[in-house]
Amino acid sequence: MASFREFSRTESWGSEAWKALCKVRETTPLVQCITNFVSMDIMANSLLAAGASPAMVHAIEEILEFTSLSSALCINIGTLSPDWIFSMKAAAIRANECQKPWVLDPVGVGATRFRTEKCIELINLKPCVIRGNASEIMGVVGASIAPSKGVDTTRSSTDALEAAKELARAAQTVVAVTGAVDLVTDGKRVLGVSNGVALMQRITATGCAVTALIAAFVSVNPNRVLESTAIALALFGLAGEMGAEKASGPASLRMHLIDALHMLDEASVMNRAGGVHHKQEVSRNTKITWCFTKHQVLVLGLYLITLSRITDLMESITGLM
Amino acid sequence: MASFREFSRTESWGSEAWKALCKVRETTPLVQCITNFVSMDIMANSLLAAGASPAMVHAIEEILEFTSLSSALCINIGTLSPDWIFSMKAAAIRANECQKPWVLDPVGVGATRFRTEKCIELINLKPCVIRGNASEIMGVVGASIAPSKGVDTTRSSTDALEAAKELARAAQTVVAVTGAVDLVTDGKRVLGVSNGVALMQRITATGCAVTALIAAFVSVNPNRVLESTAIALALFGLAGEMGAEKASGPASLRMHLIDALHMLDEASVMNRAGGVHHKQEVSRNTKITWCFTKHQVLVLGLYLITLSRITDLMESITGLM
Amino acid sequence: MASFREFSRTESWGSEAWKALCKVRETTPLVQCITNFVSMDIMANSLLAAGASPAMVHAIEEILEFTSLSSALCINIGTLSPDWIFSMKAAAIRANECQKPWVLDPVGVGATRFRTEKCIELINLKPCVIRGNASEIMGVVGASIAPSKGVDTTRSSTDALEAAKELARAAQTVVAVTGAVDLVTDGKRVLGVSNGVALMQRITATGCAVTALIAAFVSVNPNRVLESTAIALALFGLAGEMGAEKASGPASLRMHLIDALHMLDEASVMNRAGGVHHKQEVSRNTKITWCFTKHQVLVLGLYLITLSRITDLMESITGLM
Repeated sequence: MASFREFSRTESWGSEAWKALCKVRETTPLVQCITNFVSMDIMANSLLAAGASPAMVHAIEEILEFTSLSSALCINIGTLSPDWIFSMKAAAIRANECQKPWVLDPVGVGATRFRTEKCIELINLKPCVIRGNASEIMGVVGASIAPSKGVDTTRSSTDALEAAKELARAAQTVVAVTGAVDLVTDGKRVLGVSNGVALMQRITATGCAVTALIAAFVSVNPNRVLESTAIALALFGLAGEMGAEKASGPASLRMHLIDALHMLDEASVMNRAGGVHHKQEVSRNTKITWCFTKHQVLVLGLYLITLSRITDLMESITGLM
Repeated sequence: MASFREFSRTESWGSEAWKALCKVRETTPLVQCITNFVSMDIMANSLLAAGASPAMVHAIEEILEFTSLSSALCINIGTLSPDWIFSMKAAAIRANECQKPWVLDPVGVGATRFRTEKCIELINLKPCVIRGNASEIMGVVGASIAPSKGVDTTRSSTDALEAAKELARAAQTVVAVTGAVDLVTDGKRVLGVSNGVALMQRITATGCAVTALIAAFVSVNPNRVLESTAIALALFGLAGEMGAEKASGPASLRMHLIDALHMLDEASVMNRAGGVHHKQEVSRNTKITWCFTKHQVLVLGLYLITLSRITDLMESITGLM
Repeated sequence: MASFREFSRTESWGSEAWKALCKVRETTPLVQCITNFVSMDIMANSLLAAGASPAMVHAIEEILEFTSLSSALCINIGTLSPDWIFSMKAAAIRANECQKPWVLDPVGVGATRFRTEKCIELINLKPCVIRGNASEIMGVVGASIAPSKGVDTTRSSTDALEAAKELARAAQTVVAVTGAVDLVTDGKRVLGVSNGVALMQRITATGCAVTALIAAFVSVNPNRVLESTAIALALFGLAGEMGAEKASGPASLRMHLIDALHMLDEASVMNRAGGVHHKQEVSRNTKITWCFTKHQVLVLGLYLITLSRITDLMESITGLM
């Protein structure tokens, strides 16, 4: 199993993270966000604090031109509605045409059939990264295998990594499962990130915000999708840790986190994105084992292909959604 | 007149409030919010800080399933548009079917005929709580009685409580009028809450946020709607008071309020949600007198029934809005 | 060239700014905002902090009544979509009918043809102020003169003032170009404002928020549009300077800026909206020279007239968009 042993020397991890942050700050990648209403403020401010340039553009009339201009695309299905999905799909297709990376945040997938179906349709459009919490990632996989039953809630949370690997392989993408420890996988390798503090979960849309950061970081290192995803998670988590030192609750944490993200310097990144947290990740990582089930992957793959055909057929019948 | 004499012993009020807060924190009720765009961030963060779980879901395709999953529903007509109203109505109907409490925030009712009509239509779908400021509550009642004239602005603000009682009786609901002192009534009993600071009115959407908290608190004590409404108002106001001790303006108050809501402990709730403020409420409460006008209630009732029939008729003609 | 020599005595500038702020606080103008989703929170809170009353109302069903009630209207095309544009146009027309000032924020104009076309259509509806950054203002002018080519990115940033003047004259409006120094022009006179700090650009939607403030300030002094625009920019910038003294990053700056806006007192406004910064403006202002090109204005004027006719024709054919 290829793990993130390549990062096991503290220096290289911290140093790659710092170089990536500098590259974002220097090139200010334009990140187009088609995202939920709740997340827009924190997402835009997080991108700005990291050095990127946010643009919330969702009108179908603008997608063709605007997605071409963008450095990366972030799609988030939080406050979903049919007209926005249409734009999301058009933007995802356009991003692929222009070879711009696009990332997907499958918020609440599994909660309703509509949400799950639309999420699968988006996954068929080949995001380069999918980021969700454990139940969302398991929701995608569970829904794919047995769509009529919705999320299989009997699965334990330790299944999340296996679900992530399955999904990564079936959809040929990188999958990040965020939680106390964030796990990032391309289906073969697994990277762990343990930066961050629990209180971040009491701030709305921190997960959404970090997905947009992933888009920014992948756009400046498009050949290192797995590593860029882990770095974005590590830097956002690190900003959360630094913010938590000053915070006295979730709202002040939100403020200090964004301030810290803006102020991140080489010393902090080198010492804290690497260092202690990294060792923790390595030790956790050694516990990770393969749970490859060829049958599951096959079923998922066939399902995705069939669904894709049905979707195409339906769209050709009904015209616009 | 039944008043909130049952709360006149300081202990019971503070103690009920603390128990309710613990119940919210333990059960993390899922509160579906179909709300205006301005309020989404503060509403989600306030629910999280109180221990509840927010979900902004408005697509008609998801209502049937999602509202069934939710513990409570908060509908807010701030940035109204026809497609959202359709979802609001579907969600309200579904919440009733599933016996989940739903609360209504009639933002700006009375300002336009469209807003007032839609608000009345929503009230016909039987919210368990309606929360508004004095002019909004008077707007609903004024509009109901004389819809073609809009809000009767000649009414003095002392009329608000009577309007609230009328509305509560006609719509068989609990009505909360928020202001310097918040008044909560089921048409018979009246509770007063004097927690809070004036500067909270210079933060956008604090009223919206507290309506969502009411939904959370009612969901954990569905048989004590009147008291749960008062408790949510008291705790949010208390967090505002504690925040104000550290704040130097409305934006820092917003932050400290949410931090304080997250950090509320038993001592603060017992001493301050009861105690001084409560005495104030009692003394105010003794001034409250009945202004029952049977004729007004009759007219309102008949109007609501007629409007409901017209709405049904129109909808059966036009199909989906 | 008429410049802002009338403000060259420090006292009058600070004193006019202070009087205007007092007038906003006393009359609490109701500012209707049809704005992008990202900006709603900061825009509403900035208006409240300045003493105005925000209302985010966009449904076409409400425009006729609500725009009539409002003191001013702010239209921002950030997260544009066709149905919102329809409301924007209806509101702009209604504001003109009711002689209420309306201001336009052409966010991202030039990025896509759709955005540029809709922006020009809105400019044809005669805003009293247009506020954008250098590239947006140049985008409008570039697009107007050569609409099929989009933004002419070869133009240098020193062209912004000339573009602003051209636009102001052709559209008979006041144009504000914000940046390190804000420039406000009616096509003849030019006012400069150098309040503010660079970090404000790392907070999302500060530009949007100040456009709404301009609407509020113009509404209380409708005969002094040029000066009111400069004053709103100066006071928001001043609040940013005062906030920056306490801030340790963009998120804390955002908070302290809004707090400072709420707390602005006579001494601060008199000393700092005038004083040092004002001298800077004067010295800069002396460098401003006319770059009048009659041909350019003629072409722009003809284009706007033609486009207006085409728009009318199309609307009469297609009815509601």
